[in-house]
Amino acid sequence: MTDIRMIEAAAGRIAGHVRRTPLLHAPLLDRIAGRQVLVKAECLQLTGSFKARGGWSAVSALDPQALARGVIAFSSGNHAQGVAYAAAKHAAPCVILMPSDAPEVKIANTRAYGAEVVLYDRATEDRDAIGATIASERGLTLIRPYDDPQVIAGQGTVGLELAEQAHKAGVDSAAVLVCCGGGGLASGIALALQARAPGLTVRTAEPQGFDDMARSLASGTRQKNAALSGSICDAILTPTPGELTFPILSRLAGPGAVVTDEQALHAVALAFSHLRIVLEPGGAVALAAALFAPDLPDSVVAIATGGNVDPATFSAALDRFA
Amino acid sequence: MTDIRMIEAAAGRIAGHVRRTPLLHAPLLDRIAGRQVLVKAECLQLTGSFKARGGWSAVSALDPQALARGVIAFSSGNHAQGVAYAAAKHAAPCVILMPSDAPEVKIANTRAYGAEVVLYDRATEDRDAIGATIASERGLTLIRPYDDPQVIAGQGTVGLELAEQAHKAGVDSAAVLVCCGGGGLASGIALALQARAPGLTVRTAEPQGFDDMARSLASGTRQKNAALSGSICDAILTPTPGELTFPILSRLAGPGAVVTDEQALHAVALAFSHLRIVLEPGGAVALAAALFAPDLPDSVVAIATGGNVDPATFSAALDRFA
Repeated sequence: MTDIRMIEAAAGRIAGHVRRTPLLHAPLLDRIAGRQVLVKAECLQLTGSFKARGGWSAVSALDPQALARGVIAFSSGNHAQGVAYAAAKHAAPCVILMPSDAPEVKIANTRAYGAEVVLYDRATEDRDAIGATIASERGLTLIRPYDDPQVIAGQGTVGLELAEQAHKAGVDSAAVLVCCGGGGLASGIALALQARAPGLTVRTAEPQGFDDMARSLASGTRQKNAALSGSICDAILTPTPGELTFPILSRLAGPGAVVTDEQALHAVALAFSHLRIVLEPGGAVALAAALFAPDLPDSVVAIATGGNVDPATFSAALDRFA
Repeated sequence: MTDIRMIEAAAGRIAGHVRRTPLLHAPLLDRIAGRQVLVKAECLQLTGSFKARGGWSAVSALDPQALARGVIAFSSGNHAQGVAYAAAKHAAPCVILMPSDAPEVKIANTRAYGAEVVLYDRATEDRDAIGATIASERGLTLIRPYDDPQVIAGQGTVGLELAEQAHKAGVDSAAVLVCCGGGGLASGIALALQARAPGLTVRTAEPQGFDDMARSLASGTRQKNAALSGSICDAILTPTPGELTFPILSRLAGPGAVVTDEQALHAVALAFSHLRIVLEPGGAVALAAALFAPDLPDSVVAIATGGNVDPATFSAALDRFA
């Protein structure tokens, strides 16, 4: 099970290969929010999202024989690129299973990193079963997007950096809003902050209708979403909290925040205008919560998790809200 | 006259008030360029451009009496915001003279930082004369956008950071492409690199038709542009090289690069797709040169100088090139 020592070990393995991302802020954004908003810009991470951390952590933890056989991952796009990038840099063969409705830019970039992309239908096919079959046929190691201790450890390195950066910014007590799909990033950050910055409390942020984690945290048991697709926040539409991640968040996280697709697009536009970063809607959910959710403290951190967005979606957000 | 000690003193004054910006790169962008491209993301600077450095440097160098009377600046927008931000944080009154055709977002943000904005016609009015009159009436100190030793020193702090960051990235020999208006940033960086990273050579980058610095460097004397407006790169349409900056660049810079407006917009789109940063066209000119200019070494650094862009201009760039 992931703990602070595993996260620190992951930080050692990714150092020099994965970027330390800046903690941004903007006076005019604070004014809109009515509170201090610090933004950890993981969209500036290599491959465009925090997933490069977990990908590198998991791939670099494999033994040489497993590396030589290769890896497989299933992902709507960001985990795909993270694993593909890490595999390419380790000269490991890589197969990525992607839903056929993933943004084109994510499919194209995953291929550009050298991975073999296999598409499946998100609504009718079982990605776990397909992945397991290919993995077994070729002897590939399956790198799960969140229910993998080394992936959680890699994502937790965001928390190690944040603990230092927030302290340096004079913020030792805050809510840390984290865009949440399966909970790998949120649980990794929660473990790191518990050890290094206990005044910072993780709160998950999810799109309306896909708030399985918020409902699970409220009820104490893992809940499922009614739908598998239908939000613009494609990056974080997982059906239910992870088996490994939920107990961690159950223990360490505050109540989950929920935002509308509209609010996510509004946050995309405000990040453009005031932070000059590019966010995908799913990567802007935590910032949307920081700006628009009720019952937040005076200081919040939003993890801006990714920026792999189709140009048309981005322009539409600017057209409506910038 | 600005020298390395003044730049280091400016670095001391701005520390903690102005952001240390990251040096980004992307494997897929290197592939498009056919060379290693490192991007110093000054668009992530407070106020959205490197001008916060020169603004803070100049304002913080004033004596208490001058600060209390206040400052004035003229600018198409980025210097305006840099000075307005610095003045506000020093509780100094601030008047900004802006051309009436400056992007709306720059005018609005300058006002949001608390400055009094006075608009003038770029084609028919003499901003220097108007500025001098207001300054003398109110006892304001004029903060020039580039021909000011403390402004050049502030911009030079980009070079101090870059010297460290490039060395850490294993790059000790490269062309450093700098978007160039009056030459304050380019000359400050050139002075810093001469002292701290002599293998890195500044090359100015300008829009076609506004290549006064390239022609001045080639001819050895200060040349003027035929037009005062007409490029989408509004941030860097100065009529002629600065009196203080030209001798520095004449001594230290390589030949100037020139790019088309099309190439600048293409660079805006590629920075969106591969670096997930927001650039304004004038802030993307150096990246455009890094990607498309001839006769460059295998390693280049592009200073991405600013990201204060109207949403419609940005969407148009994505529509055509992303």
